[in-house]
Amino acid sequence: MLVLGIDPGLKHTGFGLIKIENRSSIYIGSGTIVTSVKQTTSQRLVIIFKGIQEIIEYYKPDQVCIEKIFLNINPKTTLLLGQARGVAICAATISLSDIYEYTSLQIKQTVVGYGHANKEQVQEMVKHLLKLSDTPHSDAADALACAITHIQHNKFNTR
Amino acid sequence: MLVLGIDPGLKHTGFGLIKIENRSSIYIGSGTIVTSVKQTTSQRLVIIFKGIQEIIEYYKPDQVCIEKIFLNINPKTTLLLGQARGVAICAATISLSDIYEYTSLQIKQTVVGYGHANKEQVQEMVKHLLKLSDTPHSDAADALACAITHIQHNKFNTR
Repeated sequence: MLVLGIDPGLKHTGFGLIKIENRSSIYIGSGTIVTSVKQTTSQRLVIIFKGIQEIIEYYKPDQVCIEKIFLNINPKTTLLLGQARGVAICAATISLSDIYEYTSLQIKQTVVGYGHANKEQVQEMVKHLLKLSDTPHSDAADALACAITHIQHNKFNTR
Repeated sequence: MLVLGIDPGLKHTGFGLIKIENRSSIYIGSGTIVTSVKQTTSQRLVIIFKGIQEIIEYYKPDQVCIEKIFLNINPKTTLLLGQARGVAICAATISLSDIYEYTSLQIKQTVVGYGHANKEQVQEMVKHLLKLSDTPHSDAADALACAITHIQHNKFNTR
Protein backbone atom coordinates (compact mmCIF):
# COMPACT_ATOMS: atom_id res chain seq x y z
CA MET A 1 0.00 0.00 0.00
CA LEU A 2 1.55 3.29 -1.15
CA VAL A 3 0.00 6.60 0.00
CA LEU A 4 0.62 9.99 -1.65
CA GLY A 5 -0.01 13.09 0.48
CA ILE A 6 -0.43 16.51 -1.14
CA ASP A 7 -0.26 19.98 0.43
CA PRO A 8 -1.52 22.25 -2.36
CA GLY A 9 -0.50 25.86 -2.98
CA LEU A 10 -0.04 28.15 -6.00
CA LYS A 11 3.66 28.79 -5.21
CA HIS A 12 4.60 25.55 -3.43
CA THR A 13 2.72 22.26 -3.70
CA GLY A 14 4.28 19.74 -1.32
CA PHE A 15 4.08 16.00 -1.93
CA GLY A 16 5.16 12.98 0.07
CA LEU A 17 4.98 9.21 -0.38
CA ILE A 18 4.78 6.62 2.40
CA LYS A 19 4.62 2.85 1.97
CA ILE A 20 3.02 0.46 4.46
CA GLU A 21 4.99 -2.78 4.76
CA ASN A 22 4.60 -5.25 7.63
CA ARG A 23 2.59 -2.62 9.55
CA SER A 24 5.49 -0.14 9.29
CA SER A 25 5.42 3.24 7.56
CA ILE A 26 8.39 3.53 5.19
CA TYR A 27 9.41 6.87 3.67
CA ILE A 28 9.59 6.59 -0.13
CA GLY A 29 10.02 10.16 -1.33
CA SER A 30 8.92 13.78 -1.04
CA GLY A 31 9.39 17.17 -2.64
CA THR A 32 7.80 20.40 -3.74
CA ILE A 33 6.32 21.52 -7.07
CA VAL A 34 7.49 25.14 -7.33
CA THR A 35 6.03 27.85 -9.59
CA SER A 36 7.28 31.40 -10.13
CA VAL A 37 5.46 34.74 -9.78
CA LYS A 38 6.99 35.56 -13.18
CA GLN A 39 4.64 32.97 -14.75
CA THR A 40 0.93 33.66 -15.39
CA THR A 41 -1.56 32.00 -13.04
CA SER A 42 -2.68 29.81 -15.97
CA GLN A 43 0.88 28.59 -16.55
CA ARG A 44 1.37 27.94 -12.82
CA LEU A 45 -1.83 25.87 -12.65
CA VAL A 46 -0.67 23.74 -15.59
CA ILE A 47 2.71 23.15 -13.86
CA ILE A 48 0.89 21.92 -10.72
CA PHE A 49 -1.44 19.71 -12.80
CA LYS A 50 1.37 18.13 -14.82
CA GLY A 51 3.59 17.82 -11.73
CA ILE A 52 0.96 15.81 -9.83
CA GLN A 53 0.32 13.66 -12.94
CA GLU A 54 4.06 12.91 -13.28
CA ILE A 55 4.38 11.98 -9.59
CA ILE A 56 1.41 9.59 -9.89
CA GLU A 57 2.74 8.04 -13.12
CA TYR A 58 6.21 7.58 -11.59
CA TYR A 59 5.33 6.28 -8.10
CA LYS A 60 1.91 4.73 -8.88
CA PRO A 61 0.37 5.34 -5.41
CA ASP A 62 -2.69 3.32 -4.34
CA GLN A 63 -4.37 6.17 -2.48
CA VAL A 64 -4.05 9.96 -2.48
CA CYS A 65 -4.89 12.36 0.34
CA ILE A 66 -4.86 16.16 0.36
CA GLU A 67 -4.93 18.88 3.00
CA LYS A 68 -8.18 20.85 3.28
CA ILE A 69 -7.83 24.61 2.98
CA PHE A 70 -8.28 26.73 6.07
CA LEU A 71 -11.01 29.21 5.07
CA ASN A 72 -10.46 32.00 7.56
CA ILE A 73 -8.08 33.97 5.32
CA ASN A 74 -8.65 36.75 2.83
CA PRO A 75 -10.87 35.97 -0.21
CA LYS A 76 -8.12 36.60 -2.79
CA THR A 77 -5.83 34.07 -1.08
CA THR A 78 -8.74 31.61 -0.80
CA LEU A 79 -9.40 31.97 -4.54
CA LEU A 80 -5.74 31.45 -5.54
CA LEU A 81 -5.36 28.50 -3.17
CA GLY A 82 -8.71 27.11 -4.36
CA GLN A 83 -7.58 27.23 -7.98
CA ALA A 84 -4.32 25.40 -7.15
CA ARG A 85 -6.15 22.88 -5.00
CA GLY A 86 -8.80 22.21 -7.68
CA VAL A 87 -6.08 21.46 -10.21
CA ALA A 88 -4.21 19.11 -7.82
CA ILE A 89 -7.45 17.26 -6.93
CA CYS A 90 -8.38 16.98 -10.61
CA ALA A 91 -4.95 15.62 -11.63
CA ALA A 92 -5.09 13.02 -8.84
CA THR A 93 -8.72 12.00 -9.49
CA ILE A 94 -8.14 11.46 -13.23
CA SER A 95 -5.54 8.78 -12.35
CA LEU A 96 -7.09 7.40 -9.15
CA SER A 97 -10.76 6.91 -8.32
CA ASP A 98 -11.12 9.31 -5.40
CA ILE A 99 -9.06 11.20 -2.89
CA TYR A 100 -9.22 11.66 0.87
CA GLU A 101 -9.22 15.01 2.67
CA TYR A 102 -8.00 16.06 6.10
CA THR A 103 -8.06 19.41 7.86
CA SER A 104 -4.88 21.02 9.14
CA LEU A 105 -6.28 20.49 12.67
CA GLN A 106 -6.72 16.73 12.10
CA ILE A 107 -3.21 16.46 10.64
CA LYS A 108 -1.48 18.35 13.46
CA GLN A 109 -3.54 16.47 16.08
CA THR A 110 -2.50 13.13 14.56
CA VAL A 111 1.17 13.88 13.92
CA VAL A 112 2.08 16.20 16.81
CA GLY A 113 -0.81 15.43 19.19
CA TYR A 114 -1.69 19.13 19.32
CA GLY A 115 -4.03 20.81 16.78
CA HIS A 116 -2.27 24.17 16.94
CA ALA A 117 1.30 22.90 16.47
CA ASN A 118 3.59 25.13 14.41
CA LYS A 119 5.38 24.24 11.15
CA GLU A 120 8.65 23.34 12.90
CA GLN A 121 6.91 20.92 15.26
CA VAL A 122 5.25 19.18 12.28
CA GLN A 123 8.62 18.96 10.48
CA GLU A 124 10.33 17.51 13.57
CA MET A 125 7.59 14.91 14.19
CA VAL A 126 7.55 13.84 10.52
CA LYS A 127 11.34 13.43 10.66
CA HIS A 128 11.05 11.40 13.88
CA LEU A 129 8.08 9.20 12.81
CA LEU A 130 9.60 8.34 9.42
CA LYS A 131 13.16 7.98 10.83
CA LEU A 132 14.57 10.54 8.35
CA SER A 133 18.17 11.73 8.60
CA ASP A 134 17.27 15.26 7.40
CA THR A 135 14.35 17.55 8.22
CA PRO A 136 12.04 17.75 5.18
CA HIS A 137 11.12 21.13 3.68
CA SER A 138 7.97 22.59 5.28
CA ASP A 139 5.59 21.90 2.33
CA ALA A 140 6.92 18.37 1.83
CA ALA A 141 6.63 17.78 5.61
CA ASP A 142 2.97 18.92 5.52
CA ALA A 143 2.28 16.50 2.64
CA LEU A 144 3.99 13.63 4.50
CA ALA A 145 2.03 14.59 7.65
CA CYS A 146 -1.19 14.36 5.58
CA ALA A 147 -0.18 10.86 4.40
CA ILE A 148 0.65 9.80 8.01
CA THR A 149 -2.82 11.06 9.08
CA HIS A 150 -4.50 9.05 6.31
CA ILE A 151 -2.57 5.91 7.32
CA GLN A 152 -3.42 6.28 11.01
CA HIS A 153 -7.10 7.17 10.40
CA ASN A 154 -7.51 4.03 8.31
CA LYS A 155 -5.35 1.93 10.65
CA PHE A 156 -3.31 0.62 7.70
CA ASN A 157 -0.36 0.21 10.06
CA THR A 158 -2.23 -1.80 12.72
CA ARG A 159 -4.09 -4.37 10.62
CA MET B 1 -10.79 33.71 -35.56
CA LEU B 2 -12.86 31.58 -33.17
CA VAL B 3 -13.27 32.71 -29.53
CA LEU B 4 -14.39 30.45 -26.68
CA GLY B 5 -15.89 32.14 -23.61
CA ILE B 6 -16.16 30.29 -20.29
CA ASP B 7 -18.24 31.14 -17.20
CA PRO B 8 -16.91 28.69 -14.58
CA GLY B 9 -18.85 27.18 -11.68
CA LEU B 10 -18.88 23.89 -9.75
CA LYS B 11 -22.52 23.13 -10.65
CA HIS B 12 -22.82 24.93 -14.02
CA THR B 13 -19.91 25.89 -16.28
CA GLY B 14 -21.23 27.87 -19.24
CA PHE B 15 -19.41 27.96 -22.57
CA GLY B 16 -20.01 29.85 -25.80
CA LEU B 17 -18.26 30.10 -29.17
CA ILE B 18 -18.24 33.12 -31.47
CA LYS B 19 -16.53 33.35 -34.85
CA ILE B 20 -15.29 36.61 -36.40
CA GLU B 21 -15.83 36.65 -40.15
CA ASN B 22 -15.74 39.81 -42.28
CA ARG B 23 -15.83 41.91 -39.09
CA SER B 24 -19.07 40.21 -38.00
CA SER B 25 -19.59 38.12 -34.86
CA ILE B 26 -21.22 34.82 -35.76
CA TYR B 27 -22.72 32.52 -33.12
CA ILE B 28 -21.23 29.02 -33.41
CA GLY B 29 -22.44 27.20 -30.31
CA SER B 30 -22.99 27.32 -26.56
CA GLY B 31 -24.01 25.15 -23.65
CA THR B 32 -23.45 24.25 -20.02
CA ILE B 33 -21.29 21.57 -18.37
CA VAL B 34 -23.50 20.34 -15.52
CA THR B 35 -22.37 18.40 -12.45
CA SER B 36 -24.52 16.89 -9.70
CA VAL B 37 -24.39 17.37 -5.92
CA LYS B 38 -24.60 13.55 -5.75
CA GLN B 39 -21.04 13.40 -7.15
CA THR B 40 -17.95 14.08 -5.03
CA THR B 41 -16.20 17.42 -5.55
CA SER B 42 -13.26 15.50 -7.07
CA GLN B 43 -15.54 13.82 -9.62
CA ARG B 44 -17.21 17.15 -10.46
CA LEU B 45 -13.83 18.83 -11.05
CA VAL B 46 -12.81 16.04 -13.44
CA ILE B 47 -16.13 16.45 -15.36
CA ILE B 48 -15.41 20.20 -15.79
CA PHE B 49 -11.81 19.51 -16.84
CA LYS B 50 -12.74 16.84 -19.40
CA GLY B 51 -15.72 18.90 -20.61
CA ILE B 52 -13.55 21.93 -21.42
CA GLN B 53 -10.96 19.66 -23.07
CA GLU B 54 -13.67 18.06 -25.28
CA ILE B 55 -15.08 21.47 -26.30
CA ILE B 56 -11.58 22.67 -27.28
CA GLU B 57 -10.81 19.45 -29.18
CA TYR B 58 -14.14 19.63 -31.03
CA TYR B 59 -14.34 23.36 -31.90
CA LYS B 60 -10.59 24.16 -31.92
CA PRO B 61 -10.93 27.81 -30.77
CA ASP B 62 -8.04 30.24 -31.39
CA GLN B 63 -8.47 32.13 -28.12
CA VAL B 64 -10.16 31.44 -24.79
CA CYS B 65 -11.49 33.95 -22.28
CA ILE B 66 -12.95 33.37 -18.82
CA GLU B 67 -14.97 35.39 -16.34
CA LYS B 68 -13.10 36.55 -13.22
CA ILE B 69 -14.68 35.57 -9.92
CA PHE B 70 -16.34 38.24 -7.82
CA LEU B 71 -14.56 37.96 -4.46
CA ASN B 72 -17.06 39.58 -2.12
CA ILE B 73 -18.88 36.35 -1.27
CA ASN B 74 -18.46 33.84 1.53
CA PRO B 75 -15.08 32.02 1.73
CA LYS B 76 -16.58 28.53 1.24
CA THR B 77 -18.22 29.63 -2.05
CA THR B 78 -15.00 31.36 -3.12
CA LEU B 79 -13.07 28.13 -2.48
CA LEU B 80 -15.53 25.93 -4.43
CA LEU B 81 -15.70 28.42 -7.31
CA GLY B 82 -11.91 28.81 -7.22
CA GLN B 83 -11.43 25.05 -7.55
CA ALA B 84 -13.82 24.86 -10.54
CA ARG B 85 -12.20 27.92 -12.12
CA GLY B 86 -8.67 26.57 -11.63
CA VAL B 87 -9.63 23.35 -13.39
CA ALA B 88 -11.28 25.20 -16.32
CA ILE B 89 -8.23 27.50 -16.70
CA CYS B 90 -5.86 24.52 -16.55
CA ALA B 91 -7.82 22.52 -19.18
CA ALA B 92 -7.85 25.54 -21.52
CA THR B 93 -4.17 26.45 -20.98
CA ILE B 94 -2.95 22.89 -21.66
CA SER B 95 -4.47 23.15 -25.17
CA LEU B 96 -3.95 26.86 -25.84
CA SER B 97 -1.04 29.05 -24.79
CA ASP B 98 -2.82 31.49 -22.50
CA ILE B 99 -6.26 32.73 -21.63
CA TYR B 100 -7.83 36.16 -21.19
CA GLU B 101 -9.79 37.28 -18.14
CA TYR B 102 -12.61 39.82 -17.70
CA THR B 103 -14.52 40.90 -14.62
CA SER B 104 -18.30 40.64 -14.46
CA LEU B 105 -18.36 44.48 -14.41
CA GLN B 106 -16.35 44.71 -17.67
CA ILE B 107 -18.59 42.11 -19.33
CA LYS B 108 -21.88 43.77 -18.31
CA GLN B 109 -20.51 47.20 -19.23
CA THR B 110 -19.51 45.94 -22.69
CA VAL B 111 -22.59 43.88 -23.47
CA VAL B 112 -25.39 45.81 -21.75
CA GLY B 113 -23.67 49.19 -21.30
CA TYR B 114 -24.36 49.06 -17.58
CA GLY B 115 -22.02 47.36 -15.05
CA HIS B 116 -24.80 46.32 -12.70
CA ALA B 117 -27.12 44.77 -15.31
CA ASN B 118 -29.04 41.67 -14.18
CA LYS B 119 -28.86 38.16 -15.68
CA GLU B 120 -31.98 38.66 -17.85
CA GLN B 121 -30.56 41.86 -19.39
CA VAL B 122 -27.32 40.01 -20.27
CA GLN B 123 -29.33 37.15 -21.82
CA GLU B 124 -31.46 39.57 -23.88
CA MET B 125 -28.47 41.56 -25.16
CA VAL B 126 -26.53 38.38 -26.07
CA LYS B 127 -29.62 37.14 -27.96
CA HIS B 128 -29.91 40.52 -29.74
CA LEU B 129 -26.19 41.00 -30.56
CA LEU B 130 -25.75 37.48 -31.94
CA LYS B 131 -29.17 37.47 -33.68
CA LEU B 132 -30.30 34.30 -31.92
CA SER B 133 -33.85 33.00 -32.26
CA ASP B 134 -33.93 31.68 -28.68
CA THR B 135 -32.68 33.17 -25.41
CA PRO B 136 -29.60 31.22 -24.26
CA HIS B 137 -29.49 29.67 -20.77
CA SER B 138 -28.04 32.08 -18.18
CA ASP B 139 -24.61 30.39 -17.82
CA ALA B 140 -24.20 29.97 -21.59
CA ALA B 141 -25.26 33.63 -22.05
CA ASP B 142 -22.60 34.74 -19.53
CA ALA B 143 -19.96 32.74 -21.43
CA LEU B 144 -21.06 34.26 -24.77
CA ALA B 145 -21.04 37.72 -23.14
CA CYS B 146 -17.44 37.07 -22.01
CA ALA B 147 -16.50 36.15 -25.62
CA ILE B 148 -18.25 39.31 -26.95
CA THR B 149 -16.26 41.38 -24.41
CA HIS B 150 -12.98 39.78 -25.54
CA ILE B 151 -13.82 40.47 -29.20
CA GLN B 152 -14.73 44.13 -28.54
CA HIS B 153 -11.74 44.78 -26.24
CA ASN B 154 -9.38 43.51 -28.92
CA LYS B 155 -11.33 45.16 -31.74
CA PHE B 156 -11.36 41.90 -33.73
CA ASN B 157 -14.63 43.04 -35.32
CA THR B 158 -13.36 46.47 -36.41
CA ARG B 159 -9.97 45.62 -37.94
